[in-house]
Amino acid sequence: MKSWIEVPTDSDFSLANVPFGVCSFPSSSTLSSTTLAPCTPRCCTAIGNHAIDLHLLAEAGLLDNLLMTTESDESRCSEIITNFHPRIIFSQPTLNEFMSCEKHVWVAVRNRLLSLFLDSSSSSSNNDIQIAIQADNRLQQNSALQSQCMHPLSTTLYHLPASIGDYTDFYSSREHATNVGIMFRGRDNALQPNWLHLPVGYHGRSSSVYPSLASSATTSENDCERNLVGGEKMSTVRRPCGQLQVDPLDPAKGSIYGPCKLMDFELEVAFFVGGPTNTDYEQDHNQQQQQPRGRPLTLSEAQDRIFGYVLMNDWSARDIQKWEYVPLGPFTSKNFATTISTWVVTSMALEPFRCETSAGVQGGGGEPTPLEYLKDPNYGSYDVNLSVSIQPSSTSAITQICTSNLKHMYWSSAQQLVHHSVTGCPMNAGDLLASGTISGKDQHNFGSMLELSWKGSREVKLESGEVRKFLKDGDAVIMKGGVKGRVGACRIWTMLCTNFAGY
Amino acid sequence: MKSWIEVPTDSDFSLANVPFGVCSFPSSSTLSSTTLAPCTPRCCTAIGNHAIDLHLLAEAGLLDNLLMTTESDESRCSEIITNFHPRIIFSQPTLNEFMSCEKHVWVAVRNRLLSLFLDSSSSSSNNDIQIAIQADNRLQQNSALQSQCMHPLSTTLYHLPASIGDYTDFYSSREHATNVGIMFRGRDNALQPNWLHLPVGYHGRSSSVYPSLASSATTSENDCERNLVGGEKMSTVRRPCGQLQVDPLDPAKGSIYGPCKLMDFELEVAFFVGGPTNTDYEQDHNQQQQQPRGRPLTLSEAQDRIFGYVLMNDWSARDIQKWEYVPLGPFTSKNFATTISTWVVTSMALEPFRCETSAGVQGGGGEPTPLEYLKDPNYGSYDVNLSVSIQPSSTSAITQICTSNLKHMYWSSAQQLVHHSVTGCPMNAGDLLASGTISGKDQHNFGSMLELSWKGSREVKLESGEVRKFLKDGDAVIMKGGVKGRVGACRIWTMLCTNFAGY
Ligand SMILES: [Ca+2]
Ligand SMILES: [Ca+2]
Ligand SMILES: [Mg+2]
Ligand SMILES: [Mg+2]
Ligand code: NI
Repeated sequence: MKSWIEVPTDSDFSLANVPFGVCSFPSSSTLSSTTLAPCTPRCCTAIGNHAIDLHLLAEAGLLDNLLMTTESDESRCSEIITNFHPRIIFSQPTLNEFMSCEKHVWVAVRNRLLSLFLDSSSSSSNNDIQIAIQADNRLQQNSALQSQCMHPLSTTLYHLPASIGDYTDFYSSREHATNVGIMFRGRDNALQPNWLHLPVGYHGRSSSVYPSLASSATTSENDCERNLVGGEKMSTVRRPCGQLQVDPLDPAKGSIYGPCKLMDFELEVAFFVGGPTNTDYEQDHNQQQQQPRGRPLTLSEAQDRIFGYVLMNDWSARDIQKWEYVPLGPFTSKNFATTISTWVVTSMALEPFRCETSAGVQGGGGEPTPLEYLKDPNYGSYDVNLSVSIQPSSTSAITQICTSNLKHMYWSSAQQLVHHSVTGCPMNAGDLLASGTISGKDQHNFGSMLELSWKGSREVKLESGEVRKFLKDGDAVIMKGGVKGRVGACRIWTMLCTNFAGY
Repeated sequence: MKSWIEVPTDSDFSLANVPFGVCSFPSSSTLSSTTLAPCTPRCCTAIGNHAIDLHLLAEAGLLDNLLMTTESDESRCSEIITNFHPRIIFSQPTLNEFMSCEKHVWVAVRNRLLSLFLDSSSSSSNNDIQIAIQADNRLQQNSALQSQCMHPLSTTLYHLPASIGDYTDFYSSREHATNVGIMFRGRDNALQPNWLHLPVGYHGRSSSVYPSLASSATTSENDCERNLVGGEKMSTVRRPCGQLQVDPLDPAKGSIYGPCKLMDFELEVAFFVGGPTNTDYEQDHNQQQQQPRGRPLTLSEAQDRIFGYVLMNDWSARDIQKWEYVPLGPFTSKNFATTISTWVVTSMALEPFRCETSAGVQGGGGEPTPLEYLKDPNYGSYDVNLSVSIQPSSTSAITQICTSNLKHMYWSSAQQLVHHSVTGCPMNAGDLLASGTISGKDQHNFGSMLELSWKGSREVKLESGEVRKFLKDGDAVIMKGGVKGRVGACRIWTMLCTNFAGY
């Protein structure tokens, strides 16, 4: 499986990935003759070191007549998908319309892109790809179109992949919930009574979800370093001010206004909801006007409504959180910024990396078995290595302070989605559902400074000789996600680099 | 102050109101020749028994050349507002674009509408209106336009006034927070330590905010009754299923799946955010791409960013809530439905009813004085009477079970908005911020069944002879809001009637 487009061996964007995102190309000179202005965000994919403008592929007819992939090999490719309008869908400034399509459309678009990227002249066997995709040489042979639709990632600007109607943050890593529980309630009452029965979550603030501006072309540690030192295209999150307890040990003494002193990150992975909204019309015959109402999703429905995943940093002001969160949950301590990576890695791309969660079987270790509506026949997660590194402003040395893995999730994405809708909440394409901090068993697997410094009681050492309990102004926080693919090692997520700054 | 349009004395929509909403008119025969199809939602106002199509007023040029109202009487009406495009703004299917304008635009549109509705031939003095508005007879004299843009409320269909980017629910009635605290933690620890220092709130789910379909033409109790019995145009909320404790007294026994047994309403008032978003661009000169970031609003800014108010029923499944809400707050117990009234009563219309809150002066009763950023020089609320009635399906008798008042708010709307943005959360036009349950001191002033039945320990008697602790299937919940205006009594909110049904 080889592309005619150059794909460096350590690229985030091999043929195994084919992510979706929203980009603009203000510095492009080749876009001046096309329908959308260069600075207009449009839907894209990425391969090797290039972003590919899907709007222009669609305009050129290369995304027409998509074929439905069915279960049987015989009937595969026999049916053309109707009611899919790529020229309209991919000229949108967000992926919401594409996400709202049924899963078979996502699969068909992905397969067509693979066809267009495959080298038609290459004699290499296709043993490496799951579905035997035939090369489609229409882009390979059209250099004029190539020059318009292919853009170096180094000059690509990133936008939010979707207009996020609602954003929810779960709390689904057992190790994280246990760590927090031990710190605040002691070892005997670490997990709350409800935790093993349902995926605990809360509504977040969608207006403060920001895209990471990090250039995905900088794939090696060295490149990243240069990039960080150069300071180019890094999104910046500023230390917030808010209400803090006068005395951290005694809430009865009231609060002061001031800058957060306990700034933290949370290593998370979030997914975008796709497919049609789970609504029905009321059957009440007395009504003149019928309103759509949410209905609970089943688990098998939910599996086809997970469009794809991003890395997420859920910035957290721990001292503000501590004072405000009783009894209704985190509020201003979280709603100033949440950063996500901008290339959405599809569930199709992640499927080969499906694995058992580190919990094994729910109920297998004496935990309660999930209630019927939460039983997931495909219970599991993905084997995606995650890491967090810090680069202080004083140095070019980057220290990896945490390694974790997406498999450390007790509740699966499908279970989260089903539970979210259990009472009838409408789940819309473009909604973002986050994992919660993903921590593993050992100390170096903890996904937040709160846990790494164990509530500020121990120091995390950096290569520069500095130490951290929480974040300092000027720290760059670098999150990465990677898989070991069948086609060699590949990282499938762009890095999430964010600079943290004081006021 | 008299309109040439008939305004019944008990109408919600006198010249003192002039609300904004989004309506459609599928049964209209006069709209066939206009640009928007009759079933297309568009921006409207209401006067008397009519909805007025603002899109058609704008198309006819009647909203052009709006005048800026300035402080001094001399310079008033001297300046024409530029960069306001009523044809575009009022042909939108939501009020978001209008809400995003500066407050002086809202005032100018309201004043123009008053001019158009004033009877130019009436000799009555204008002593009753605050600003001496001159009648503008262009609508009064244009019967062709009248027949197109005026629609009986009885055939008007209602939509959400705005696309709600984010919805937040506060907890700002001291009496309500105290009641809940006494029930769950005892009288000595009723208020949490943070409650008097900041407006406690949490992020809600915007996808499940629904418009009330109740016809606002039914203004008298009798009309309402007929309407309810007829069952026309009532939105229906269904009893949700979810996770409940096996043993309500012992969470350690785990949970079952089943229908909520403790269904409740919450009497609330919510406001829509207006004006420009509180964002700045990062000044970091190293960045190629600049991202807008939220910045804290000041209290004086916040006062001009409150567009207007609606009634709200925050449906609550108490048994689901009890099991799930620790430690991150309510989730599936609230995210199945939140109903709002559809006519937005502007802050301009409410201004004459400004009053002290029932708390008097913050700090005056020994409470902490608010931190500097929360000090509200205009601290207060509005004197708006609120009520909740129930009509069981078995009877036509309606029982008023609660009377309350918007003045029972300890934290003002401006304080809520400022605190929401204190760490830098972007607040967008169309965001909805709710008061929390508004309870008064006495038992009949409690704004939820949880409080009225004191956690199910006492029965609420209905006129039919039935009793309630929580809601039963078939109960219609009717919320009303009214003010005593200078021009006689007038109710300024349409009723919020919702039918509650089983599965
Ligand atoms: Ca989190
Ligand atoms: Ca509430
Ligand atoms: Mg939302
Ligand atoms: Mg939102
Ligand atoms: Ni186009």
